[in-house]
Amino acid sequence: MIDVALFGAGRIGTIHAGNVARQPGVRLKYVVDVDAQAATRLAAQYGAKTTDAETVFNDAGVGAVVIGSSTDTHADLILRAAKARKAIFCEKPVDLALDRARSCAEAVRSAGVTCLIGFQRRYDPTFAAIKERIAQGEIGEPEMLIITSRDPAAPPVEYIKRSGGIFKDMLIHDFDVFRWILEDEAATVYATGSCLTDRVIESAGDIDATAVTIRTRGGRLAQINTIRRAVYGYDQRFEVLGSKGMLQAGNHRPTEVTLWSSGAVAADKPEYFFLERYRAAYAAEMAHFFDVLAGRARARTSIDDGVKALALAEAATTSWREQRIVEL
Amino acid sequence: MIDVALFGAGRIGTIHAGNVARQPGVRLKYVVDVDAQAATRLAAQYGAKTTDAETVFNDAGVGAVVIGSSTDTHADLILRAAKARKAIFCEKPVDLALDRARSCAEAVRSAGVTCLIGFQRRYDPTFAAIKERIAQGEIGEPEMLIITSRDPAAPPVEYIKRSGGIFKDMLIHDFDVFRWILEDEAATVYATGSCLTDRVIESAGDIDATAVTIRTRGGRLAQINTIRRAVYGYDQRFEVLGSKGMLQAGNHRPTEVTLWSSGAVAADKPEYFFLERYRAAYAAEMAHFFDVLAGRARARTSIDDGVKALALAEAATTSWREQRIVEL
Amino acid sequence: MIDVALFGAGRIGTIHAGNVARQPGVRLKYVVDVDAQAATRLAAQYGAKTTDAETVFNDAGVGAVVIGSSTDTHADLILRAAKARKAIFCEKPVDLALDRARSCAEAVRSAGVTCLIGFQRRYDPTFAAIKERIAQGEIGEPEMLIITSRDPAAPPVEYIKRSGGIFKDMLIHDFDVFRWILEDEAATVYATGSCLTDRVIESAGDIDATAVTIRTRGGRLAQINTIRRAVYGYDQRFEVLGSKGMLQAGNHRPTEVTLWSSGAVAADKPEYFFLERYRAAYAAEMAHFFDVLAGRARARTSIDDGVKALALAEAATTSWREQRIVEL
Amino acid sequence: MIDVALFGAGRIGTIHAGNVARQPGVRLKYVVDVDAQAATRLAAQYGAKTTDAETVFNDAGVGAVVIGSSTDTHADLILRAAKARKAIFCEKPVDLALDRARSCAEAVRSAGVTCLIGFQRRYDPTFAAIKERIAQGEIGEPEMLIITSRDPAAPPVEYIKRSGGIFKDMLIHDFDVFRWILEDEAATVYATGSCLTDRVIESAGDIDATAVTIRTRGGRLAQINTIRRAVYGYDQRFEVLGSKGMLQAGNHRPTEVTLWSSGAVAADKPEYFFLERYRAAYAAEMAHFFDVLAGRARARTSIDDGVKALALAEAATTSWREQRIVEL
Repeated sequence: MIDVALFGAGRIGTIHAGNVARQPGVRLKYVVDVDAQAATRLAAQYGAKTTDAETVFNDAGVGAVVIGSSTDTHADLILRAAKARKAIFCEKPVDLALDRARSCAEAVRSAGVTCLIGFQRRYDPTFAAIKERIAQGEIGEPEMLIITSRDPAAPPVEYIKRSGGIFKDMLIHDFDVFRWILEDEAATVYATGSCLTDRVIESAGDIDATAVTIRTRGGRLAQINTIRRAVYGYDQRFEVLGSKGMLQAGNHRPTEVTLWSSGAVAADKPEYFFLERYRAAYAAEMAHFFDVLAGRARARTSIDDGVKALALAEAATTSWREQRIVEL
Repeated sequence: MIDVALFGAGRIGTIHAGNVARQPGVRLKYVVDVDAQAATRLAAQYGAKTTDAETVFNDAGVGAVVIGSSTDTHADLILRAAKARKAIFCEKPVDLALDRARSCAEAVRSAGVTCLIGFQRRYDPTFAAIKERIAQGEIGEPEMLIITSRDPAAPPVEYIKRSGGIFKDMLIHDFDVFRWILEDEAATVYATGSCLTDRVIESAGDIDATAVTIRTRGGRLAQINTIRRAVYGYDQRFEVLGSKGMLQAGNHRPTEVTLWSSGAVAADKPEYFFLERYRAAYAAEMAHFFDVLAGRARARTSIDDGVKALALAEAATTSWREQRIVEL
Repeated sequence: MIDVALFGAGRIGTIHAGNVARQPGVRLKYVVDVDAQAATRLAAQYGAKTTDAETVFNDAGVGAVVIGSSTDTHADLILRAAKARKAIFCEKPVDLALDRARSCAEAVRSAGVTCLIGFQRRYDPTFAAIKERIAQGEIGEPEMLIITSRDPAAPPVEYIKRSGGIFKDMLIHDFDVFRWILEDEAATVYATGSCLTDRVIESAGDIDATAVTIRTRGGRLAQINTIRRAVYGYDQRFEVLGSKGMLQAGNHRPTEVTLWSSGAVAADKPEYFFLERYRAAYAAEMAHFFDVLAGRARARTSIDDGVKALALAEAATTSWREQRIVEL
Repeated sequence: MIDVALFGAGRIGTIHAGNVARQPGVRLKYVVDVDAQAATRLAAQYGAKTTDAETVFNDAGVGAVVIGSSTDTHADLILRAAKARKAIFCEKPVDLALDRARSCAEAVRSAGVTCLIGFQRRYDPTFAAIKERIAQGEIGEPEMLIITSRDPAAPPVEYIKRSGGIFKDMLIHDFDVFRWILEDEAATVYATGSCLTDRVIESAGDIDATAVTIRTRGGRLAQINTIRRAVYGYDQRFEVLGSKGMLQAGNHRPTEVTLWSSGAVAADKPEYFFLERYRAAYAAEMAHFFDVLAGRARARTSIDDGVKALALAEAATTSWREQRIVEL
């Protein structure tokens, strides 16, 4: 039986709590959150206790921590967990500052603890199938990757101000998908963008729509387009063109209903947002974490993946701000 | 150069006139129609002359006739064309009376003339591809056929009264598809139906919605569903299930546009009606007719196909009227 | 806290056990199965005990029974559960004999207990959405229903021999969908069929492919086509045509991957079989059962639905065997 | 009756000849080609004469010229046609040199003759429908445009060497689509690329795969991805995201057949190449040209569109070669 402490009782913490509780041989022991009410509510639901970080790290019985608290707490919690030699599952990003993220990676490496970063898209049934089918050679050598990644609606501007900007907050997932699918590293990054949906985002020093191009060391080409607001919902598609074919990831829909009317033939919009679309991915991700801890699987992501995606996000931010092509 | 006489300057006659005129080595010489104005207009468009049937059949220079006039004229024109030893292309049905259709077939056989019946669906790119792929063994042995055949709107009740009823007027095409795709003959036919769209059709002694089931001599099963009014347009689908897979014919759409809105993901409705959906089929059909006459192809339909589809329509009518299963 | 006894530790029993265990305020107390090993294994997984039927019905603490044992045990267990005044969830069919099923319904009515029949398709997200959208008037008045219901592979012939025949075993679900979607009752039933996939099924007195047509009291038309073996998997589609449009239920696929190759543009096959396709439906169905018991919802199915679907299956069997149209 | 001279009897010239011949009130009088045999064959097919350019421009009876000869002849023929005050239809590009193209535009303007450039995609049913639906406000304000434009196979390297490079030869169509759909002009262009399919293209100083990003004056974002070889055929898709929705242009397929097999659910690949995909567009384009000449329509493209697309192609070429963002 592995005892687990969860940091963060918000939206994503709640998802993780349910998935932790569902693992055989795993017990959710602690929930930690600055919002005592949220922590209490979530802890009660799964028979866990609320506590503080110090108690967690001093409790030798805690085998793993799941970090789903706000971004500014990640690095500190990773460092303390590494020091206490607890296995770590941490939401992206490791930190908004690249050097601090690298320190975390170094600490994790020194401590020799498992540290998975929450790139849940790698566990999405559709995305994971594409990864596997490329590995099986279905499309030959991958050459081009086109990612469409659009949110249904922008978060409050207060969130955006603390988010590190669109590249670190939103595209970091796409940068991870890029590295994971092409198995190649960026040679150059070009990013441009606009504030198209709400001027308040611009006044917060950010943009809400981006167009990113990456050329890899191996000469492969990747394009990413994102926006904070697509009225039809969460749009999560990508396609990989290879020498022998193309694999395309479509959106998931709530149902397979089609309406044929006097106007059109209409199917469902995509699942509304990440909690809906990646429900299965979050569950598979957490199962994978405990499979890794039990020695049943090799970790599919590492803290280095978190650092490298962050480095791409930083390069893209520089490219956009300084209006130049950034070499890595 | 083959000189051709066209009977009928209405909707379908106009289509055929254009397709005849487009064939190399073929000239539209005459247009015959009781509506002198329609005949004159159409003849003028293609440099043809208007005339009457007698002139056509007495003109030794006419090599072929295309019959697109009203159903009640078909049999007489076929008989006269056969006697005059002219090649015949005739719209379905051969006649509303089965014995009269059989007499026509006999006359055609005796005269030894080519006689194609206008089952244009056999020339539709989608349908023809399925026929060929079955022949290539893609789905093994065909076992079940499901036909959906729906019109966008009912014709005027005056038309319906003279149409021979829904089975001879509308389903005759589906009965031909059934025979053509399964390459098997009906052992039993069961038909039921309702008047669902307009009570005036019922008062004309007809129905506007049908459900037909055919069991073949070889034990294959076919179901056909039809209605005179589908608000989303002309619905022309079928699927053939075989021992190794299924081939499915979808509708054709005017464009490949998809709209993703806050409501749904919406594609075009099907092509509006038969003139739009079967435009390519009508062209291919007429090209085929002259390929046959030139010895470049073997006839894909014969007057016997017209007779057999009519026999099925008659059996279905009996089944519906007498509420019993009809054996053939 | 409601204590539950589960009858049947096989494939469907295992599904139900998991779904029962997941309900808040519900405890799986007993598992009963003639296969002691299966019962023990399943009971252990959820902290339940194995026992026999007598103990279950004598235990006043048991509030509900879930019957997923073999068909020949259903009626007896329903009668005993009704007598013991326990709420009942029972897999279809109530019984293979219509009179016996009616006796069960009578007993349930007299006892005043809740009795849901396991027509899980009513809880499928796609099917349930169609039901709701018809209720909201999206397609006007429903007029025609076309059901395609195909299994990936036939069960062992030993199973088929005891199954009551294809209409009671397989189409009973489709008959329930017919009643549920059209909200109308059958006036006439016509069924034909063939043995197309394996001759051993014919020698067992059954068929493996059917074509059924129902005309309702209101003049609506329904067609059902089924086969025991579709090589591409479990095919569960239907479409309802109404006066203002059509709603169509498509298959569910494991992923949304599409491969564009030199051969074709290829999507996933449907989910393999009912355990995969109806996973969400089984979960929703069990949640609904306990919602009903807790007074949070009105029962969406009753034992009468079970009886009526069985009556249709019996009528279809008669129609097929006696080669006649059956009036109800 | 307008008499027309056609320059070029190759692949595209043959298409145009057929479409010219089909226009009412239009006669194909001359065919001019350095390949006398090709000219003779094509002229014969439509009852035209072969001749040389001098004769064409001296023949006061010629009202319009259609230029489908090799790119290096375009500018000279445009200048001569403008001087002779003949209406001009010319294939893209106007010329490979931007200043020379501008001189042509100036000559056309001075002469006051109609000059349409062959951006046939504007006449494609799918693309034209999107243009119109944006104009009707279906997606609000257009914000992002993603273009996928892939050829099935690279042309011979000898062709590539004279082509002006991939941006002027292949992407010029995409640059026109960009301007036409967004109705905005480029502020910055960034282009990168690789030689991924055949090293011989690299040794010819060109690339075969590109990723282009355009930011418009209005802040809109466009991305274009192209490759010379997609094994599944000609891939011509784009999508326009707007403030109220997205319009997406899918590929056209030869048929609407779907095969459900034990492996997958497979639809047709896209139409093979531009002659197939844009057959309807070429026909509509030529009809439009003569509608313009007859005063029935306003010209949908002008030689300025040709110049502006060329300027974008030149900017992209510079961006790629000099590895920098180009401002316009």
